[in-house]
Amino acid sequence: MGKGIVRLRDIAARTGFSLNTVSLALRNSERIPVETRNKIQSAALELRYVPNHVAQSLVSRATRTIGLVLTDILNPTLTQTAQSVEIALAERGYGTLFATSNNTLEEEIRVVDMFRSRQVDGILIYPARHRDLEHLRPLRSANFPLVLLIADPDAGIDGVSVNDRSGGYQATRYLIGRGHKRIGFLDASHANGNDEKLEGYQQALLEAGIGVDAELIAPTNGHYARHGYFALDMLMNGPKRPTAVLTDNDSLALGALRWCHKQGVRIPDDLAIMGYDNIAFTEFGEPPLSTVNYDAQAVSQMAVDRLMHLIAAGEKLPPPRVTLIDPELIIREST
Amino acid sequence: MGKGIVRLRDIAARTGFSLNTVSLALRNSERIPVETRNKIQSAALELRYVPNHVAQSLVSRATRTIGLVLTDILNPTLTQTAQSVEIALAERGYGTLFATSNNTLEEEIRVVDMFRSRQVDGILIYPARHRDLEHLRPLRSANFPLVLLIADPDAGIDGVSVNDRSGGYQATRYLIGRGHKRIGFLDASHANGNDEKLEGYQQALLEAGIGVDAELIAPTNGHYARHGYFALDMLMNGPKRPTAVLTDNDSLALGALRWCHKQGVRIPDDLAIMGYDNIAFTEFGEPPLSTVNYDAQAVSQMAVDRLMHLIAAGEKLPPPRVTLIDPELIIREST
Repeated sequence: MGKGIVRLRDIAARTGFSLNTVSLALRNSERIPVETRNKIQSAALELRYVPNHVAQSLVSRATRTIGLVLTDILNPTLTQTAQSVEIALAERGYGTLFATSNNTLEEEIRVVDMFRSRQVDGILIYPARHRDLEHLRPLRSANFPLVLLIADPDAGIDGVSVNDRSGGYQATRYLIGRGHKRIGFLDASHANGNDEKLEGYQQALLEAGIGVDAELIAPTNGHYARHGYFALDMLMNGPKRPTAVLTDNDSLALGALRWCHKQGVRIPDDLAIMGYDNIAFTEFGEPPLSTVNYDAQAVSQMAVDRLMHLIAAGEKLPPPRVTLIDPELIIREST
Repeated sequence: MGKGIVRLRDIAARTGFSLNTVSLALRNSERIPVETRNKIQSAALELRYVPNHVAQSLVSRATRTIGLVLTDILNPTLTQTAQSVEIALAERGYGTLFATSNNTLEEEIRVVDMFRSRQVDGILIYPARHRDLEHLRPLRSANFPLVLLIADPDAGIDGVSVNDRSGGYQATRYLIGRGHKRIGFLDASHANGNDEKLEGYQQALLEAGIGVDAELIAPTNGHYARHGYFALDMLMNGPKRPTAVLTDNDSLALGALRWCHKQGVRIPDDLAIMGYDNIAFTEFGEPPLSTVNYDAQAVSQMAVDRLMHLIAAGEKLPPPRVTLIDPELIIREST
């Protein structure tokens, strides 16, 4: 450490002022005449001096670093979230430590502990299991700034998210409106207890008097395109061949699209496909995919704003606030 | 700060030992009887105590944090790199601070300064401009551990990368071998001075006696699918309509694929398309895309290993070493 780093003594040597004067001038202290401050600050700029953040941390008791925990950044939506969060935090002078939980609770607990040991000022987290938040509640109770990138009004923890229940509901209602009755669902999340989209799907079917058929709900073994490919294969070779399918995310839908091409199933004539998230590639599918828009930038901005609010609150946090952003459907050629 | 964090005094209160004894026991000091150490360490575990990393940093002069600079993690290959680097560093007890340069040199300089001010122990960087490394050389000269995720033998800085010149060369040779003579190139990188793939493409054409035709090289305005769509449109409506096209990355190729579908151009009969990187979606294109494999995991592992080696070297770094991984072609149905 410290190698290649310009230190206060280098600025002192360059300007002829004492270490103490240099230090005060760089903190813009009124005790130093403005002319002297200008000279010292110019020298610091010329030498590309950067202050030692670690030493500053012990004084200010703030690291100006935020921990970001995502399940898996190979999901393009979470990637976009990571990028938006990093930019939003940098604008506010914060660094982003990031780590992934690989969709497991054990890894998530380990990563949160690691971030705490690094004294981050707050944590943004997309939890692996939306209902298993017991390891996070004590942090909230102890007034540690924490914002979930899911939104559960009963969680007792701040959260910002797209309203996935509404997304699942709207997408299914749209398919019902197009005359579909046998609507499949490729479900990547139920195994982790994340049921918001599934619940919206079920609600729309029940409201329309169609009813929920368990044989139309296909669990996938993961979140990637290949998982969508195999789950659709199972569904289409099952007892109730659907005429439309809603998928937990766009990668699954792109895998489903590929299955249809291979099998000569026409889209949308033989099978309508609706994705979820609106990742960039959906527009370039053959045909372009209808999907539900997950506004990663809005979620990131609002989550960072909320976290800054909690950090500014100091010792005693305000009551948790949960913000749900209602998504809109993006209708293209696959439905 | 420190809210919700278990402190040494909590462990002292729980076990009845002095602060000093607790502190020594947690550092596993031989000065404390092993039985006492066990009691204290168990209490620390029960209370989920995590040591204060910031205070430790000042003592050890190491933050055990690495800065990772990427140009843009919306590129799936760089996303995979980020994820692999984070996992490899976590295994070695290091945290990952990350930031993106948005493909600009100015932002890159800002981010590197920010990381230095946070006293990272080393930096991994995918530079925006492969030839503009002047801001990084002084760090290397000052024995600061730094590894580039590009590999330029003349850079004078350690680097690990896929050999993109070889990748461009192999892909072009393959297309020539399939009988193509008018081979286009969708070029996203030349504007940033990153010419490795283009040089490989040119070398293969020259070797085959075909020659390089500037009208077959189409600059794109970015790295995403939409940029590939419009660049191919330009090329196919130009004076020399190609029979095959090589693209700087897979996103461009997926955009080119979409253009062909819209225009009724058959792949590979009317136009062969070869991507670059082998991102997951290439397998699910219609048809599945031929591409060049960028082994992000191998690059990440080797780059992290090299960085650890530099950090362990201490005050005086060994001479720079550059590692090039030769990529292999992935041939699918688009060529």
